[in-house]
Amino acid sequence: MTEWMGSTHTVLDYGFVRLVDSMAKDISVVNSARVSFGKSTESMTPADVQLIRFLMEHRHGTPFEHNSFMFHVKCPIFVAREWFRHRMGSFNEYSGRYSEMIEEFYVPDWEDMRTQTGKPGSYTFEPIDDEAVCAHIDSVMTNAYESAWNTYQDLLSQGLAKELARSVIPVGAYTEFYWTVNARSLMNFLSLRLGQDAQHEIRQFAAACETFFEDKMPITHGFWKDNGRVAP
Amino acid sequence: MTEWMGSTHTVLDYGFVRLVDSMAKDISVVNSARVSFGKSTESMTPADVQLIRFLMEHRHGTPFEHNSFMFHVKCPIFVAREWFRHRMGSFNEYSGRYSEMIEEFYVPDWEDMRTQTGKPGSYTFEPIDDEAVCAHIDSVMTNAYESAWNTYQDLLSQGLAKELARSVIPVGAYTEFYWTVNARSLMNFLSLRLGQDAQHEIRQFAAACETFFEDKMPITHGFWKDNGRVAP
Amino acid sequence: MTEWMGSTHTVLDYGFVRLVDSMAKDISVVNSARVSFGKSTESMTPADVQLIRFLMEHRHGTPFEHNSFMFHVKCPIFVAREWFRHRMGSFNEYSGRYSEMIEEFYVPDWEDMRTQTGKPGSYTFEPIDDEAVCAHIDSVMTNAYESAWNTYQDLLSQGLAKELARSVIPVGAYTEFYWTVNARSLMNFLSLRLGQDAQHEIRQFAAACETFFEDKMPITHGFWKDNGRVAP
Amino acid sequence: MTEWMGSTHTVLDYGFVRLVDSMAKDISVVNSARVSFGKSTESMTPADVQLIRFLMEHRHGTPFEHNSFMFHVKCPIFVAREWFRHRMGSFNEYSGRYSEMIEEFYVPDWEDMRTQTGKPGSYTFEPIDDEAVCAHIDSVMTNAYESAWNTYQDLLSQGLAKELARSVIPVGAYTEFYWTVNARSLMNFLSLRLGQDAQHEIRQFAAACETFFEDKMPITHGFWKDNGRVAP
Repeated sequence: MTEWMGSTHTVLDYGFVRLVDSMAKDISVVNSARVSFGKSTESMTPADVQLIRFLMEHRHGTPFEHNSFMFHVKCPIFVAREWFRHRMGSFNEYSGRYSEMIEEFYVPDWEDMRTQTGKPGSYTFEPIDDEAVCAHIDSVMTNAYESAWNTYQDLLSQGLAKELARSVIPVGAYTEFYWTVNARSLMNFLSLRLGQDAQHEIRQFAAACETFFEDKMPITHGFWKDNGRVAP
Repeated sequence: MTEWMGSTHTVLDYGFVRLVDSMAKDISVVNSARVSFGKSTESMTPADVQLIRFLMEHRHGTPFEHNSFMFHVKCPIFVAREWFRHRMGSFNEYSGRYSEMIEEFYVPDWEDMRTQTGKPGSYTFEPIDDEAVCAHIDSVMTNAYESAWNTYQDLLSQGLAKELARSVIPVGAYTEFYWTVNARSLMNFLSLRLGQDAQHEIRQFAAACETFFEDKMPITHGFWKDNGRVAP
Repeated sequence: MTEWMGSTHTVLDYGFVRLVDSMAKDISVVNSARVSFGKSTESMTPADVQLIRFLMEHRHGTPFEHNSFMFHVKCPIFVAREWFRHRMGSFNEYSGRYSEMIEEFYVPDWEDMRTQTGKPGSYTFEPIDDEAVCAHIDSVMTNAYESAWNTYQDLLSQGLAKELARSVIPVGAYTEFYWTVNARSLMNFLSLRLGQDAQHEIRQFAAACETFFEDKMPITHGFWKDNGRVAP
Repeated sequence: MTEWMGSTHTVLDYGFVRLVDSMAKDISVVNSARVSFGKSTESMTPADVQLIRFLMEHRHGTPFEHNSFMFHVKCPIFVAREWFRHRMGSFNEYSGRYSEMIEEFYVPDWEDMRTQTGKPGSYTFEPIDDEAVCAHIDSVMTNAYESAWNTYQDLLSQGLAKELARSVIPVGAYTEFYWTVNARSLMNFLSLRLGQDAQHEIRQFAAACETFFEDKMPITHGFWKDNGRVAP
């Protein structure tokens, strides 16, 4: 039985982002930037707020690193693969070498089924508005996942090691991981993964992460947003 | 038409490791460790060789960072996923968002088909010696891959964007990437991915990387091997 | 007037290490390693404790990264220079470009005055037991610092920019910084900076950091110590 | 006797930047970005050139990481201290623990002597045009350095260990180090250290590094410059 600590945002059909723990206060930005004065405060003055704005606008990034967010994420493997490209953070993921893979697979909602047009560097996506096509896609994907899972179970029943049998599991299967990251690296992740170029699916997960960031460091989040969501 | 620069090691059924470029000389270890004397040499003395041994044994790691290996790798996705956990290096990977996935999939040779026994922390693997079972596994995996590929093509023909259609592609599919890394980080990768705990498949790729390392930095490689292949 | 949050360890003549904030629990090691089971707990079982031991002994390092220590440090510049070589962490330091340098300088206690013998790679240090020599050293260093400070003030009074006038300030002057780091990187720092090869002065600061680590993550600290203080 | 390999730029009164070795070609940017096509080329087409422009403008940074510059730098300690804040790169520095410090110290040319006005966040610098004042500053700094050096020698002659005696050496003293870095990290360094906010002295060193970058990767350098010298 799983009991989650912390609040959880559900994302897509089986995914979620939850904040397990954090050490994240706007005041840490001020104190680390003001180390020069050898003092630290617990409450923010208007001048402190303006300092955060200044640091954000002038891309002084290091004061935004003295904090930490520990997330627990469940998402499709193809989303996790993009996520793990972000090297400034810590990951621990579910392993298909030692445990059975998770029998949950991503099938997009019909309104998220889309077609891609354009050229490299300027793709655009249009919804597939035809219900018959959506139904076909839904059915084909569901069958493919079911077939892959049955093959996986067959391979396991033949005695094949989990680490080999997983070869047939599709990248639409869900996985889970812990991700610990500071606000500077998180802002960089969000700026890239909330952007127009990012795939719709990872944008939903990034949006969930953003709500936790906004909740814990509202002043930092506000100036980051004002600044075009560019990471300092 | 593909024309490779540099030498290439083939690995598994469709994979390879090739060294695209490098800046890797044993002498750089000596010169960076001896920056204190403000001099640099082009040929190594016996004292220089002993210095490399000393640095390796005493885990002075930074002098092994002033070099660079640029690899081009083709491997199954499940191998790439382990590889990308190594954060001290640079990656660019084939993207299934913009290009069709690669129609090549890993099926283990019969002698590499194995069963897993034991508990977490002390697994052992035994070959599956039964030819009928191996033939069954081979056939089941091949069919699963073929079926997944057909589904993928069907989804594309329905107009579904590549980034969504790829959801049904199994992690046994091949991918390609460039990986640029220095010797210190490479030694860390090799120490982990050549080890007894590593999965057989990534060990084959690590072994290919090791041959390039040995070729370019033979003295460093030699002392690293003497030192139990522990990264400094 | 400075009011410190958190407890403070004084180090050397004017230095300190204080823990400003932390997100550091032994249970996070267990939960991130057990992400495979999709569950998290708040209290540790004996099996959880043994899991931490196993991870430490087998050098599975990533589960020790899901935590964070934010330190405020005051130390001589020559100590800070060694500290800042540790790249896996976040720093914000007092800046002599914008503020006057700190008028405090390190003079070793007489029992810490020492002489160096031996060759590179195997230096040993012996105390200078002669009180007259110690008194001379004490006086010479104090005078040098006072002279440097007076020159600094003279240069400032001539209108020279702080960033240039600081050129005459010795590396024995104190500086301050914030340092945020996870347990894995902290253990690496401690293994190197508590070691026999480390300079006496930074060892005192590392020892202060260790007390905070032990206090917050006692089980992790215990197994790390049992394991020869080698970082996983 | 020192014999340098590679070309050397002299900087300030005793400093230099020289390129020891490199693996740096514009074509590597194209090939790593085009890994999707599984091909690599040795000569650049106009389309390749435009691809580099596109990557730079859209801040796709990773293709600029598959290269390496190994620099040898000699600069004042206060410059080195700013340099070492850049964590994405490799450093090995001259050590005052094992070798005597370098008897060379930075005294600004008279036209570089300047005064600082304004407030934090908007400082401006004005030259000190008064020759008498410049002569005074020159003399005061030179004397302070000489006095510090004499004290250092006195402390060494008393038997004090080098690692302690160096405490009196000013941060205007020269040091040396090797720095190995890829183009992406180098562009980030240059964007910050060539900027208006950077101290004049480190800007001279950054400008020297830029010439090597321009020489080795002229197309990348050109688009980076066109793009406002913002790192991708």
